[in-house]
Amino acid sequence: MRASQFFISTLKEAPADADIVSQKLMLRAGFIRKVAAGVYNWMPMGLRSLRKVESIVREEMNCAGAIEIVMPVVQPAGLWQETGRFDGMGDELLRFKDRHERDFVIQPTSEEVVTDIARNELKSYRALPKNFYQIQTKFRDERRPRFGVMRGREFTMKDAYSFDRSAEAAGVSYDTMYAAYCRIFDRLGLTYRAVAADTGAIGGDRSHEFQVIADTGEDAIVYCPNSDYAANIELAEAVAPAGERAAAAEALTKVHTPGVKTIADLVRFLNIDIKATVKALVVEGEEGDAVLMLVRGDHELNEVKAEKIAGIKKPLTMATPALINKAFGANPGSLGPVGFNGRIIADRTVAKMADFVIGANEDDQHYTGANFVRDCVEPEVADLRNVVVGDASPDGKGELAIQRGIEVGHVFYLGTKYSKAMDATFLDEDGKPKHFEMGCYGIGVTRILGAAIEQNFDDKGMIWPDSIAPFSVVICPVGYDRSEAVKATADQLYGELLAAGVDVIIDDRGERPGAMFADWELIGAPHRVTIGDRGLKEGKLEYQHRRDSEATAVAPADILPLLLAKLG
Amino acid sequence: MRASQFFISTLKEAPADADIVSQKLMLRAGFIRKVAAGVYNWMPMGLRSLRKVESIVREEMNCAGAIEIVMPVVQPAGLWQETGRFDGMGDELLRFKDRHERDFVIQPTSEEVVTDIARNELKSYRALPKNFYQIQTKFRDERRPRFGVMRGREFTMKDAYSFDRSAEAAGVSYDTMYAAYCRIFDRLGLTYRAVAADTGAIGGDRSHEFQVIADTGEDAIVYCPNSDYAANIELAEAVAPAGERAAAAEALTKVHTPGVKTIADLVRFLNIDIKATVKALVVEGEEGDAVLMLVRGDHELNEVKAEKIAGIKKPLTMATPALINKAFGANPGSLGPVGFNGRIIADRTVAKMADFVIGANEDDQHYTGANFVRDCVEPEVADLRNVVVGDASPDGKGELAIQRGIEVGHVFYLGTKYSKAMDATFLDEDGKPKHFEMGCYGIGVTRILGAAIEQNFDDKGMIWPDSIAPFSVVICPVGYDRSEAVKATADQLYGELLAAGVDVIIDDRGERPGAMFADWELIGAPHRVTIGDRGLKEGKLEYQHRRDSEATAVAPADILPLLLAKLG
Repeated sequence: MRASQFFISTLKEAPADADIVSQKLMLRAGFIRKVAAGVYNWMPMGLRSLRKVESIVREEMNCAGAIEIVMPVVQPAGLWQETGRFDGMGDELLRFKDRHERDFVIQPTSEEVVTDIARNELKSYRALPKNFYQIQTKFRDERRPRFGVMRGREFTMKDAYSFDRSAEAAGVSYDTMYAAYCRIFDRLGLTYRAVAADTGAIGGDRSHEFQVIADTGEDAIVYCPNSDYAANIELAEAVAPAGERAAAAEALTKVHTPGVKTIADLVRFLNIDIKATVKALVVEGEEGDAVLMLVRGDHELNEVKAEKIAGIKKPLTMATPALINKAFGANPGSLGPVGFNGRIIADRTVAKMADFVIGANEDDQHYTGANFVRDCVEPEVADLRNVVVGDASPDGKGELAIQRGIEVGHVFYLGTKYSKAMDATFLDEDGKPKHFEMGCYGIGVTRILGAAIEQNFDDKGMIWPDSIAPFSVVICPVGYDRSEAVKATADQLYGELLAAGVDVIIDDRGERPGAMFADWELIGAPHRVTIGDRGLKEGKLEYQHRRDSEATAVAPADILPLLLAKLG
Repeated sequence: MRASQFFISTLKEAPADADIVSQKLMLRAGFIRKVAAGVYNWMPMGLRSLRKVESIVREEMNCAGAIEIVMPVVQPAGLWQETGRFDGMGDELLRFKDRHERDFVIQPTSEEVVTDIARNELKSYRALPKNFYQIQTKFRDERRPRFGVMRGREFTMKDAYSFDRSAEAAGVSYDTMYAAYCRIFDRLGLTYRAVAADTGAIGGDRSHEFQVIADTGEDAIVYCPNSDYAANIELAEAVAPAGERAAAAEALTKVHTPGVKTIADLVRFLNIDIKATVKALVVEGEEGDAVLMLVRGDHELNEVKAEKIAGIKKPLTMATPALINKAFGANPGSLGPVGFNGRIIADRTVAKMADFVIGANEDDQHYTGANFVRDCVEPEVADLRNVVVGDASPDGKGELAIQRGIEVGHVFYLGTKYSKAMDATFLDEDGKPKHFEMGCYGIGVTRILGAAIEQNFDDKGMIWPDSIAPFSVVICPVGYDRSEAVKATADQLYGELLAAGVDVIIDDRGERPGAMFADWELIGAPHRVTIGDRGLKEGKLEYQHRRDSEATAVAPADILPLLLAKLG
């Protein structure tokens, strides 16, 4: 590509409403332009990277035996009513009526339509397994779209859906997709981690998120540096501390704690170790009763774990002040298990504590030296909290670490959730209809670009992996319009690279060198060749990788083999 | 591709609601599946052909210097309000509100968004010319979606928009696109014609439709077999007959014509040549007056031509019975120019007529022997009618012929219509802002598949051009699962074709030969190789093009070169 025939539009400053690095850089480098909140034009430069991501995803999906289809953006409400999602999904599902007042949605995913395909087309077990995928425009009417393509409203997603005879066979499909995702993210050139994720009501252990590692990521990823254990923070298990609970050593003592409402207040007021305190949280039980949950003062309640406990109202609902007051005779800030007659669930760590500090169920009063059994009932014990750095890994192979990540893919075993809701069956070998065992597998295609940038940037701009750079190589001739020698050398290299199948752009716009280099550093083309009169007189060109701090002098005859070697 | 790993789903019968051949065949062959009226799933087989069309369109657009972008499916109403199309377009524009009650549309085209890009990005004449295109999902909420992908609601369109400094430069962009379209339709392997089309309010002569020739086409295409004249029926000029008007020879005679309401009635009742009759049509003038238009009895009023005449109400409005009765003192069926005081416009052919038969402006009365000047005023003369086969070509090079066609592309000079409405300007060389001169260029990507089928089918199914067939070559082994020799020969040829880059499928499903051949005749793979034990014993395979009535015996060693030669 010649830059003069392409469209390069860079900005010195990002628009004021851009929140994060990738969004700012994509706007500045002319990858995207905003049309409405969370809705963007894909400009020529950005579209090149987007198409490269799509191609890699498509190739690996095909390789893994998945079959491409395209399901419509606009889908009739009827199918969505069969699964209850038409009414059950929130305002993120964009609903509208056509000119005949019939209800439609714009697809955020396509479980309903693909399950309808399966029940119409896959009549026999002989047709299984099948995995249909599409790379298609999606829309989610986010309440507050932000972070550019990371949380936009209109976006491109690859969504695949597998159909199998049995849960066991679905496991094979799941593993095939898991392996394909690893190949995809390897080829994209990104540092990522596949982490176990919550399966919600489906159950089982077949749910993994693919997380691109980036300090700016929204998600916390828990992993063990000594093993392959990795899970998202919702799922990561907090194991019980080793050893038995110590015997009570202190007396239960009521302390007047005026104005103390939080654990931080308490620690400051009593000048104690936060690890000696216990936080009391009250949630609603299924019967509308108040259930007391206890986590150590420095720990955080994990709501996903809490919600899964039998007898707890779903979705997890914090108790109202009125319910708390009725159940405890005190207000939040001074609650605790002593004297409480309702259900008490202690986190595994709390269950091992002795002589702890806790609310006294009287406003502005706490107890020190509290102990289970002696001062209150022995609680139920459950894993109730988020893990923290240094916790023991559940596989016993060391201590947990935490990274930030950006979720770009998800593989998920659906079981018969959708096939039962839509009565989608096939005839099995025994002649009887059975519901399909399904899995769904998503990749946020547009999101990947944002994640790639969050992982690879510096103060000059983006730094693209070769495989998804808008151009792998940029030739920057200094004085292309003035020097015959520069023009001839640049054009020759350009021709040779094109002939070798390299995705190269030659910047023949005639920009000043400073502006030209700044553009390409912003755009983040990984390999740059600079050609100038001064160097040519010495028989030299310059090669610089976008991560290199300095250029390397290269003889003209060596540049092509050098580039081909770098591009692998 | 191995058929066992692909998804083939053919139907014996098309669903009852399919109207036309292409729709029936696409449904039967498993190219598409209906999701809602005018909304389809693209199934694996159809998607392959669709992607091939997209690739050819993309390659030629890139070759022609157009630059690919993607504009969102969901677009904010604000831009559409600037051009007046938000309120001005009919119900085909799908409008909806997002969760915050803001108005949006689903794009049927993207003039507004691309013009917004231009006014933000193309600041200087130095940035021009530019031509941005996208291949993107569109939605038109057709009142009565029908004909499968030919008049669906959700469809894929390639839409390009050129921006130029001047009308002259816009003409160059127009010509470039015209040439690119010719290359595209050549490569698609379709018989087509570029025909001049009406430019409406824009004026000028820069509007051409690309019509795929098919007997089932909705559009009438007028052309001259001896020249390159071609226009659609709306635009094709009906020239005046040669020679002068004959002198009046008959007396004006009133004839009682009870029950005669139509020209057919009149011809039958008086037993005369239809070419001696004149049809009277009454339309509204701009002042609400009745305007009488006269075309020969066997001709049809061309409403596009009629509407363009100065002083005629736009859009063309037929006069109400009340207005007619007031202006003529008679009802439709007996109207004419004799005694009418209003405006009279005669078609060029009528203007040359003498002694014609026409309504007498009395119910159930006609005149024979009517003549202009002697019996009524000399009328205004205009081209008012559709041409018919045998009319003189406007270029004087012979007689016109008419074919049926399916519009699959349109190139159109827009002038400053959108740039003025949205005040989209660039700074010209003189330092002054000027409105962009624009052109728009559409290709109905999904529609092309329907048109290709309407042009290429027989009673067994579709017949694809090589370039857009879902598979170019199908290998049909008879007894793949039973005969080692068949399997070995088939697998070897499959491997060789793959290695040669041929898009080949091997039907290893183990279907009975009759069902297998019927599937591939329906699907329309152009080249078929049949491999069976009986032939192999004689050292023969069979080659058959989808258009061949018989297979040709070929030695195994000759089949690869034969196929490569056929595939060009």
